[in-house]
Amino acid sequence: MNQSIILKQRPEGTPQSTDFKFEDIDQPTPKEGEVLLKTRFVSVDPYLRGRMRDEKSYIAPFEVGAPIESAVVAEVVESRHKNYKKGDHLTGMLAWKKYQTSDANGLRLVDPDQAPLSAYLGILGMTGLTAYFGLNKIGQPKEGECLLVSGAAGAVGSVVGQIGKIKGMKVIGIAGSDEKITLIQEKFGFDAGINYNKTDSLSKAIKQSAPDGIDVYFDNVGSYTLDAAMNNINQFGRVVNCGAISLYNETEVPKGPRLETTLVKKSVKMQGFIVRNFEDDFPEGIQQLSKWMKEGKLTNEETIVQGFDQIPQAFIDLFDGKNKGKMVVEVA
Amino acid sequence: MNQSIILKQRPEGTPQSTDFKFEDIDQPTPKEGEVLLKTRFVSVDPYLRGRMRDEKSYIAPFEVGAPIESAVVAEVVESRHKNYKKGDHLTGMLAWKKYQTSDANGLRLVDPDQAPLSAYLGILGMTGLTAYFGLNKIGQPKEGECLLVSGAAGAVGSVVGQIGKIKGMKVIGIAGSDEKITLIQEKFGFDAGINYNKTDSLSKAIKQSAPDGIDVYFDNVGSYTLDAAMNNINQFGRVVNCGAISLYNETEVPKGPRLETTLVKKSVKMQGFIVRNFEDDFPEGIQQLSKWMKEGKLTNEETIVQGFDQIPQAFIDLFDGKNKGKMVVEVA
Repeated sequence: MNQSIILKQRPEGTPQSTDFKFEDIDQPTPKEGEVLLKTRFVSVDPYLRGRMRDEKSYIAPFEVGAPIESAVVAEVVESRHKNYKKGDHLTGMLAWKKYQTSDANGLRLVDPDQAPLSAYLGILGMTGLTAYFGLNKIGQPKEGECLLVSGAAGAVGSVVGQIGKIKGMKVIGIAGSDEKITLIQEKFGFDAGINYNKTDSLSKAIKQSAPDGIDVYFDNVGSYTLDAAMNNINQFGRVVNCGAISLYNETEVPKGPRLETTLVKKSVKMQGFIVRNFEDDFPEGIQQLSKWMKEGKLTNEETIVQGFDQIPQAFIDLFDGKNKGKMVVEVA
Repeated sequence: MNQSIILKQRPEGTPQSTDFKFEDIDQPTPKEGEVLLKTRFVSVDPYLRGRMRDEKSYIAPFEVGAPIESAVVAEVVESRHKNYKKGDHLTGMLAWKKYQTSDANGLRLVDPDQAPLSAYLGILGMTGLTAYFGLNKIGQPKEGECLLVSGAAGAVGSVVGQIGKIKGMKVIGIAGSDEKITLIQEKFGFDAGINYNKTDSLSKAIKQSAPDGIDVYFDNVGSYTLDAAMNNINQFGRVVNCGAISLYNETEVPKGPRLETTLVKKSVKMQGFIVRNFEDDFPEGIQQLSKWMKEGKLTNEETIVQGFDQIPQAFIDLFDGKNKGKMVVEVA
């Protein structure tokens, strides 16, 4: 039986399971030039929250009544496409459906012998590339500098910190539980970790871990966490604005201390990006990340949830930080 | 008679004339290797407000009871320095004194036959170089793009807009009076001007002048003006954080809408700087600015106030926008 998950209504604030609806749909038949795909792994990502709003952004919003889509790894179960055969695995943006047909435009072949299939949604996929290009192109890391990462145990943050260590930086992570702090220090090699749920002043906690200040701040969180980082930023500091998960569910733009005086006084750069800006360099990025993985310098951390019916909940759980590393749903 | 202007007390909020004190001092005698300088022109600049605070910044704070210093053009009235002779003119950071001795370290010779002496404090000095390097190095202007400048009739803004036109941009300026709007359009060639005192919504006024959005925003003002610009910023937009005059007199950091979501969504860069970051390139900048002046492509606008006793008031008047172009005090 085939099924699809559609956006039933646009979430108000934090997404609820009632914002999504499961629909039974027909099994499609591939036309000439198409493949029939069986969904194997589905990526759930904070940025999808933005597409659930009815507003202009770098990518069109989801339509109410239409299926959600995200990065997926799928298996070819029937092929009428000259480049792909039954048993091949493809990844790219696909709908939240158990089965779907595709002309394979925008999809690429992945090799289950090179890495586990789920890795192509994480460390060898969008999140790994986001970490790699965000840190390198915008953060411009230098050996001996101090890197602060928020969402440090998450899909992007955990990779950013590890790349920081490879580059010879002092790396400090912010995360929301002692378990995550242990993880980032013991498994990912961060020099220090701050549990934001256990500090009175995040700003002071950062100062304690980084008495010489922060040179690069990789921000996945925004809001108070960004403020605290800015209080500790060094002259010529770079802030990589990768995400602002703390703000995605807000219905109005919250206020915070104005940052422009700090930017001027300390010659600081803040720069936002999406990974697609660096699309031309993806092959180089994937190659470098794979190499580091093979050399044992980079560890892939995943939270794998089982079952197609769990996709909406896995997405919702991101906003409570229930994932360690990349949150992925294994469908079959 | 020699006189000095000292910082009597640190200003609270907007500086007052009572924060400054005139002191009669002795006429100094130059030692071997020194020159005796007579102050001719004194630059007053918004950034000096920052040095009146007792806080760490890119430059040491002024001390209470000690003379203020700023950029000055002075005449050598007696020389015991091998490189300079009586009648030479030097510029650099000097104290607010009628006469002072100096070893000339950090000063440079200027030529009154090449440009009026006051120009070395403005368009061929720190403010011209600030405009030139801020726009070029951080704004990365491209022909056909739209440039928005706040403080558009000021010392830096008026030069930024003119360089924008030289680069083939559409240039929109924000200023605080109809007279200034006329000035920036008729004298400096801006394509459009917005009088922020006559708009209900600055954000909408910008949208009207720039229906295709803003690619580069050169910010001298900060606060609400920055917010309004950010509402109109395009994908891959660059914000040059040059100053935040609206915030310099605040005693606490004011709050404003958080900008990080816009930075991420639109891949926007905000970057602060001070002109000294580009010190190595100053000779190139001065050469280019002089060339444009000689070609008639660049106009130097100044507000020249007369008299040593007027220096504090000229500085205070900056915060009411009483200057058009560079505010300079002619001492003698």
